[in-house]
Amino acid sequence: MQFEKGVPVQWLAEFTGATLKGDTNQLATGINEIHKVTKGDISFVDFEKYYSACLQSAATIIIINKEVDCPEGKTLLIHPDPFSAYVKIVKHFRPFEPGNKHVSDTAVVGEGTHLQPGVFVGNHVRIGKNCIIHPNVTIYDHTVIGDNVIIHANTVIGADAFYFKRRKDRAAQYDKLESCGRVIIEDHVEIGAGCTIDKGVSGDTIIGMGTKFDNHIHIGHGAVIGKNCLFAAQVGVGGKAIIEDEVILWGQVGVSKDLTIGKGAIVYAQSGVASSIEGGKVYFGSPVEEAKAKMKELNWVKRIPEIWERLTRIS
Amino acid sequence: MQFEKGVPVQWLAEFTGATLKGDTNQLATGINEIHKVTKGDISFVDFEKYYSACLQSAATIIIINKEVDCPEGKTLLIHPDPFSAYVKIVKHFRPFEPGNKHVSDTAVVGEGTHLQPGVFVGNHVRIGKNCIIHPNVTIYDHTVIGDNVIIHANTVIGADAFYFKRRKDRAAQYDKLESCGRVIIEDHVEIGAGCTIDKGVSGDTIIGMGTKFDNHIHIGHGAVIGKNCLFAAQVGVGGKAIIEDEVILWGQVGVSKDLTIGKGAIVYAQSGVASSIEGGKVYFGSPVEEAKAKMKELNWVKRIPEIWERLTRIS
Amino acid sequence: MQFEKGVPVQWLAEFTGATLKGDTNQLATGINEIHKVTKGDISFVDFEKYYSACLQSAATIIIINKEVDCPEGKTLLIHPDPFSAYVKIVKHFRPFEPGNKHVSDTAVVGEGTHLQPGVFVGNHVRIGKNCIIHPNVTIYDHTVIGDNVIIHANTVIGADAFYFKRRKDRAAQYDKLESCGRVIIEDHVEIGAGCTIDKGVSGDTIIGMGTKFDNHIHIGHGAVIGKNCLFAAQVGVGGKAIIEDEVILWGQVGVSKDLTIGKGAIVYAQSGVASSIEGGKVYFGSPVEEAKAKMKELNWVKRIPEIWERLTRIS
Repeated sequence: MQFEKGVPVQWLAEFTGATLKGDTNQLATGINEIHKVTKGDISFVDFEKYYSACLQSAATIIIINKEVDCPEGKTLLIHPDPFSAYVKIVKHFRPFEPGNKHVSDTAVVGEGTHLQPGVFVGNHVRIGKNCIIHPNVTIYDHTVIGDNVIIHANTVIGADAFYFKRRKDRAAQYDKLESCGRVIIEDHVEIGAGCTIDKGVSGDTIIGMGTKFDNHIHIGHGAVIGKNCLFAAQVGVGGKAIIEDEVILWGQVGVSKDLTIGKGAIVYAQSGVASSIEGGKVYFGSPVEEAKAKMKELNWVKRIPEIWERLTRIS
Repeated sequence: MQFEKGVPVQWLAEFTGATLKGDTNQLATGINEIHKVTKGDISFVDFEKYYSACLQSAATIIIINKEVDCPEGKTLLIHPDPFSAYVKIVKHFRPFEPGNKHVSDTAVVGEGTHLQPGVFVGNHVRIGKNCIIHPNVTIYDHTVIGDNVIIHANTVIGADAFYFKRRKDRAAQYDKLESCGRVIIEDHVEIGAGCTIDKGVSGDTIIGMGTKFDNHIHIGHGAVIGKNCLFAAQVGVGGKAIIEDEVILWGQVGVSKDLTIGKGAIVYAQSGVASSIEGGKVYFGSPVEEAKAKMKELNWVKRIPEIWERLTRIS
Repeated sequence: MQFEKGVPVQWLAEFTGATLKGDTNQLATGINEIHKVTKGDISFVDFEKYYSACLQSAATIIIINKEVDCPEGKTLLIHPDPFSAYVKIVKHFRPFEPGNKHVSDTAVVGEGTHLQPGVFVGNHVRIGKNCIIHPNVTIYDHTVIGDNVIIHANTVIGADAFYFKRRKDRAAQYDKLESCGRVIIEDHVEIGAGCTIDKGVSGDTIIGMGTKFDNHIHIGHGAVIGKNCLFAAQVGVGGKAIIEDEVILWGQVGVSKDLTIGKGAIVYAQSGVASSIEGGKVYFGSPVEEAKAKMKELNWVKRIPEIWERLTRIS
């Protein structure tokens, strides 16, 4: 997320109880995860093995749990628990704003757009022109929807990222990483009934122009789906997955987080994509392989009794 | 769908910009897909390889993109883009009718039926007697529900078919085939929470008498589910699948489109039915095989190391 | 379920048309399934092979379809159709109570809890403090929710158990076992969007303290989920499964009913757990095996062509 106006690092230090090191006069302009930070962003790191990646990233303000050397032009916020300090900042700038009616006063809805009964439109949502939002759809705060979008009934856009930090010394072990990202749905997208598209942790979940989803599809936090994709029913996509343009996923396909599916790939039903796969090919299996190779393998499996038979004849 | 009264083919030609050939005076009585057209129906064809199937079907009025010979007693509507002409007709006779309250004025709800809070009942819906429709269920326009039906919360009945035509030369590549079919739910059916049952493209999606669905089930457009079936949670069924009476599908089973599952078949959890299977048998696997054969195969796989061992001893 | 006050067995006999045998003066204090009955409970049995298990259980009042010897201190309700008699009792003590507004008058909602627009809260529901219930969530009657719980949009808590008795001689073959159990969600639980958690048939479905669910998760009737579990999206858990503390299930995992997953087990995506598995281990496959063994097996399968090659060279 980007702040509306810059936030002084001194204020951040005081607000979180952190100690400043490095440039103590600059302004933070946004919050982001390590894989997509830009200049001016706040990020955090609490595992020693990720220190150098974070310190060398584009992030300008780094919340860290050890007093290390501060790179030129950056600011360190030294805090014993960077996760908590980060969450405190997120909650301050993206507080939970209770809704008291079905369409919030701060939502902007374009001309020719129909909101059917029971639709909830949260705070600061923008919806474009000529959309149909079917009954009982829930659109969380800060979502951005383009023109000519159709969202079928009971779908949920913008629920929180599923992202927790484990604290084994506590009774309730999981601390929630509060999300400050958004969902962005581009023009001409159609989303089926009963789908869920989560907001990004700090960046945006994006559904590209012209993409069509069937029902019961789950898209994890910060995933980026390309243009003109087709996903059949009950597909699930993990957080921060990148799915390029014109990818076709058949029913019940599962896609792990943090991977890329190349442009134009086709994945057959019930397959599981556990790591990145190239575009322009057809895949099957859990974990997936190229479909032709997988089909051959399935045939080989059927020949095991024949192999056994032949083996017993000669030994 | 059937029209309320016949539509002159000359009006259709003018409305779509098509050229008439054959009988120019008859009335169209309905719209249907090629696999279930009857006399009087409009259908369309735009691929040369399907021309003869469509021309020889029961359809009386055929929208086609080539001037071919018109079979006796039929009417051709010659149009450069039959898909668009067809969609224009569907949109005219089944326009989107915005809802402005939770139960539309044109809905008919039988005696003893409870509609819980948040239920949306669209235009022209008919619901029978002694039903319970739990909170936040969405029932799209034209749905027909019998007597003694229970629908659990947040289920969606009658969302649009997932059916698109690709136009690779456009930025947004997929054109939507507008649906004019319905969902018909027969007596004594129970549908779990969070299910989605799509309407047919032009025919009806049918859930047979006495069938029971657990939660999160997806039924694609135009599928026909028999009587007294049991589907466990998270089952997905593709468009136009035919599932005969008394079929049992366990959890997370996936069924492809355009196939038949015979009466009384049982399919074990997580299986994938990719093509038609006979009734009266038990199945497992993705793709499914008869369960006993599949279990044997799984055992054979476990014996590969033994085969290898034996082979290395003799060679 | 427990009755508010004891119910005389003579009233039960008269109400159901059963014949009393054994102690004809005692009070029933609750209703329960055979696997969790306690003293004072009513249970029922209608298959001869389960007679002795039921008669020897802790149940005090047993509805049975044969006149057998009555164990000391118990009461038999002899009835030709124990299932129907049992359902009649359940319906009497847990009648369907129509809701006429979004938050029922008998619901109790704790301080600091936000109910967002479109949330339905049924009769006799208790919700603790500082919870957020997002839009269009449905909470059925009798649900109990602790403090600091978050439930995301369009989730359904407490729908009926998927439990039917087949009567092959009827047109609509399945008779519904009416549920009288509840869902209990402990403190610090977070439930994703579009989930469904069914109530127990007579006991309670429990989601343990600190457990976190992603979206589209299904939990069957009477399942007991431990503390600090993490379930990724589209997981399905069958009825009465017991999942101990700190279990992690990745996306699209399916868990059968009536089994136990031991503490701290991790199950990889798309796996199917068909029978009980020990805690502290990592699993994969459908049906699951220990992940390392399964990975080895997948590698062995890839070597079949090599085995064939070697075999043809020597025979």
